[in-house]
Amino acid sequence: MKNKKELLQGNFLIAQSGGPSAVINQSLVGAILEAKKHSQIKKIYGSLHGIKGILEENFIDLKRETKQNLERVAKTPSSALGSVRKKPTPEECRRMFEIMNKYNVRYFFYIGGNDSAETANIIDEEAKKDGYELRVFHIPKTIDNDLRENDHTPGYGSAAKFVASALMGDNLDNRALPGVKIDVIMGRHAGFLAASSSLARIFPDDGPHLIYLPERPFDMEKFVQDVRKVYEKFGRCVVAVSEGISDKDGTPIAAKFTREVDAHGNVQLSGTGALGDLLAGVIKSRTNISRVRADTFGYLQRSFPLVISEVDSKEARKVGQIAVKTAIKDGVSGSIAIKRKKTKKYEVYFERVPLSAVAKETRKMPDKFINDEGNNITSAFIEYARPLVGTLPVIGRLKGMKVAKK
Amino acid sequence: MKNKKELLQGNFLIAQSGGPSAVINQSLVGAILEAKKHSQIKKIYGSLHGIKGILEENFIDLKRETKQNLERVAKTPSSALGSVRKKPTPEECRRMFEIMNKYNVRYFFYIGGNDSAETANIIDEEAKKDGYELRVFHIPKTIDNDLRENDHTPGYGSAAKFVASALMGDNLDNRALPGVKIDVIMGRHAGFLAASSSLARIFPDDGPHLIYLPERPFDMEKFVQDVRKVYEKFGRCVVAVSEGISDKDGTPIAAKFTREVDAHGNVQLSGTGALGDLLAGVIKSRTNISRVRADTFGYLQRSFPLVISEVDSKEARKVGQIAVKTAIKDGVSGSIAIKRKKTKKYEVYFERVPLSAVAKETRKMPDKFINDEGNNITSAFIEYARPLVGTLPVIGRLKGMKVAKK
Repeated sequence: MKNKKELLQGNFLIAQSGGPSAVINQSLVGAILEAKKHSQIKKIYGSLHGIKGILEENFIDLKRETKQNLERVAKTPSSALGSVRKKPTPEECRRMFEIMNKYNVRYFFYIGGNDSAETANIIDEEAKKDGYELRVFHIPKTIDNDLRENDHTPGYGSAAKFVASALMGDNLDNRALPGVKIDVIMGRHAGFLAASSSLARIFPDDGPHLIYLPERPFDMEKFVQDVRKVYEKFGRCVVAVSEGISDKDGTPIAAKFTREVDAHGNVQLSGTGALGDLLAGVIKSRTNISRVRADTFGYLQRSFPLVISEVDSKEARKVGQIAVKTAIKDGVSGSIAIKRKKTKKYEVYFERVPLSAVAKETRKMPDKFINDEGNNITSAFIEYARPLVGTLPVIGRLKGMKVAKK
Repeated sequence: MKNKKELLQGNFLIAQSGGPSAVINQSLVGAILEAKKHSQIKKIYGSLHGIKGILEENFIDLKRETKQNLERVAKTPSSALGSVRKKPTPEECRRMFEIMNKYNVRYFFYIGGNDSAETANIIDEEAKKDGYELRVFHIPKTIDNDLRENDHTPGYGSAAKFVASALMGDNLDNRALPGVKIDVIMGRHAGFLAASSSLARIFPDDGPHLIYLPERPFDMEKFVQDVRKVYEKFGRCVVAVSEGISDKDGTPIAAKFTREVDAHGNVQLSGTGALGDLLAGVIKSRTNISRVRADTFGYLQRSFPLVISEVDSKEARKVGQIAVKTAIKDGVSGSIAIKRKKTKKYEVYFERVPLSAVAKETRKMPDKFINDEGNNITSAFIEYARPLVGTLPVIGRLKGMKVAKK
């Protein structure tokens, strides 16, 4: 490791990768503004569409962006530099180092989830092998909230706020026109986002009444029984389901309807109504409930502009800043993880972790967040998630004093 | 008609019907607070779940609601009194008059769309036949914006704001990860809501690039050609589609996938991803574009709590107040229509129209709002819709000064 006083001089390259989030540009802008403060960094380049932009030498000059415009971009959802889903081969890494070398890039930042961390880790390892001097930093982002080492990830709070708000509205909709409503929520392997639907509950009879997560095997018989039971009690039933729910053999229920797979081997589950329609069809055919509907929230969850968690937004900015600061000061590669203090009031701190610690593998919801029956969350989850979403809509309900029949 | 000075004395009954909206409770609260001001009205009853609540004598006492709680309810989406989709038979009307008579109900208000206006009209005609003295008022509400006599309807502005905001986010999502994205938007017969997606456009290359409406026959060949053309130009394509798009014989494209029909004879089109999946499948199989996705916005459009148009909210309140004022003052039945003044600055006025003028039949988008090719809207539509949605999200985009290749 270099002596801390001899800081590495060179140019700065940043890119975004994977699915967008509502606050991913906060991290981008946090990193750019921090980079501007350091004399070791001369040029600040942005690569368009992740590593694809590096391979195509498709760079923009981020030093020429005004502060005012950057602040507007920070508040705008979805990767402003464009994104990509791509895992580099060793040959592609070598090609990237040749290009980086031409531009004297010594600091590379990649904003994304576990797949992007994997890419960053590969680049870091290949650079070491090749003897190309490069600090590689991963900046966390994922609405799935499934990055290891992190208490939670930037993007999750805002997506959770969208899901909770949507469920508040949808619960009221279902209360007005009773029946069974099934909402399919993003989350391939981790149920954090589907679980956030629980924050919609205010009154004891509020939905979602049932929540199914990828962490527990999904059993169709049990599902039908669960819905029937809730419907008998409340005359209606709102269900939140992770798109990634799988049967006891680990086969995603939705995977029966799609075969598209991305470069990281992920089956494409979003953007199709098949799972919701399947579940609704099962309830219709196996119960005598006539009004059964399903919605799949799709991309709205990750890119909606008006529903952004204030906390999430601030933390996303901060994590970008700290990644740059740490890369320069510590002189190593890594990722920045968000950790929660054990204080009563919600507080976080940021910690550098090795790239390998967040790359590739994801984490799941801890057991303590899921009820024994595997069809709901616990109050421990509510305590965990509440501070992350910020303010939620105020919901009013008529007192509804019954008039005695005449 | 009665002498205006001898105003009809009696009790007040209000109910909500049809699909909910984000501002339907503004109309409810507007009507209740107005009713409280008039000495002719003693009791203020709310019927739960529309006319079903009347038939079941299921009333609540709205005079016992605090002003503070009513104001909270006003800001909450989805019918606070519950809703129903039900068309009364003459026998049911007679039964309702017997019940209304027991409670001395002389003023009946029904908040809803064209089907609810039809119900109100039936009740009004049957009451006249039966000699039951009753003022029946319909208070307009529909996110579809398809009520005749109205420039626009309460609920539309907020739903349009949701759709425009969603498309802003989704366009950015598609810009980050290019491909074809198809968004299916509510609207059985009228394309107003799908058309509102056009308000998402800020930059010249912004989507939605194509908009398909029920007012024009949907041709699959033309659709594939249109998408291909946009994709060749921008390397991506965002499409907004009304759920009600139909072929040249008038058969809804989505109707091939569902057979559920409600009491008013409407085929159920929402809450299923089939149309979106069908269109995405066609593009995938007939072009060489690999990334094709579809989302169906579903119920989120009509009940989302955080995305409410300020103008819509105010007008919904006003229309409830005016309905009550007019029912008492004019001593007749009717509906309140929103008309737009021919002033440069957006201004509206309210007019009493006969129930029959808004009942049953709906209106479509005027020709001047649709382009000649039938795959987009005109600037006349933008001018029409802009004032109705209120403030939209601010969207930032990097200037993106290209770095010269080395």
